[in-house]
Amino acid sequence: MRQVATLMSIGTERQGLIEITDRIVNWADAQAVKVGLLTIFCRHTSASLLIQENAAAAVRSDLERYFVRIAPEDPSAYTHDDEGPDDMPAHIRTALTPVQLTIPIIDGRLVLGTWQGIYLFEHRRRPHSRTLALQLLGA
Amino acid sequence: MRQVATLMSIGTERQGLIEITDRIVNWADAQAVKVGLLTIFCRHTSASLLIQENAAAAVRSDLERYFVRIAPEDPSAYTHDDEGPDDMPAHIRTALTPVQLTIPIIDGRLVLGTWQGIYLFEHRRRPHSRTLALQLLGA
Amino acid sequence: MRQVATLMSIGTERQGLIEITDRIVNWADAQAVKVGLLTIFCRHTSASLLIQENAAAAVRSDLERYFVRIAPEDPSAYTHDDEGPDDMPAHIRTALTPVQLTIPIIDGRLVLGTWQGIYLFEHRRRPHSRTLALQLLGA
Repeated sequence: MRQVATLMSIGTERQGLIEITDRIVNWADAQAVKVGLLTIFCRHTSASLLIQENAAAAVRSDLERYFVRIAPEDPSAYTHDDEGPDDMPAHIRTALTPVQLTIPIIDGRLVLGTWQGIYLFEHRRRPHSRTLALQLLGA
Repeated sequence: MRQVATLMSIGTERQGLIEITDRIVNWADAQAVKVGLLTIFCRHTSASLLIQENAAAAVRSDLERYFVRIAPEDPSAYTHDDEGPDDMPAHIRTALTPVQLTIPIIDGRLVLGTWQGIYLFEHRRRPHSRTLALQLLGA
Repeated sequence: MRQVATLMSIGTERQGLIEITDRIVNWADAQAVKVGLLTIFCRHTSASLLIQENAAAAVRSDLERYFVRIAPEDPSAYTHDDEGPDDMPAHIRTALTPVQLTIPIIDGRLVLGTWQGIYLFEHRRRPHSRTLALQLLGA
């Protein structure tokens, strides 16, 4: 059993789902473990992680619109707005989605299903630099 | 420290919460570790996992109705409907609930609380065959 | 590689977010691992865990109000009310937030971001004693 860890930076340009499957899979594959466990941790309170459909782009835009609808930019609804009207909705959308994913590795590959992609979910309007911590345990 | 992993198939008949506690606990117990960590990963984008009340059945039916209410089948709300009106609500309900659970093992047992059961949450109407990946680390 | 596990009790006085960052970090630090993985598991179906903003208190009160709004105490909406009107909303709020968090340790420290605190989210009105299971793997 051995373990390896790293920090990975992701630049975001706009609100929404940014696919990071290739970057994650490439890093995990490079560690060359046969059986193991990969943990991805998002070090922010206004961005999160999501595993979702990687084929139809309409799924992503529908999901983005859904989260805008259930946690809208509505100044009358929130006390906190230090960083503008997208500040508090960003915290709420982060609370409703994971900041951490742990994915098994079997037969040398992450066990992602055929239609599963890994996404960073940026909840702020302006570009941000986001940091993920990756930790892999395995043999 | 050693690790063991497997794939487990679950057949679903209808939308809703399907208890899988016994199957998971039996598999974990058979690995006979004293301290460890079990990870369950659902390889789908229209089914998820949930730890919830295992006693009153009304909790499950109330939960099922709640998710129908907050992510309804409403063709006017979504662009994506490749597989019918339950397609996009299934993706949304999956985004709002975990696809991965990691549960410690202490004193040879999963640390589930007295009232905690493990459920597969099927979000599609028609029967499906779902695959879970299980990975256990321990000693 | 070694592992250590413990149970931690948290007393809650009221509904809402209770910061437990210091207790978790102190326990993890005391295990003195350089690289590893900490898992926190909440053994209840009416309390959960959340990583959120640790600076502005208004973020927490806005979050608490948000969950009251999307899963309100509304006897007409639920069948299950064995323990009163806050019973079923507590199960729903638990389903919408994590009961388990796994956080990497790199360079001897949990990789929490600058603004990330760890909270126990109590969803019942009356005081409760909650138990968390902590498991740490590392070297």
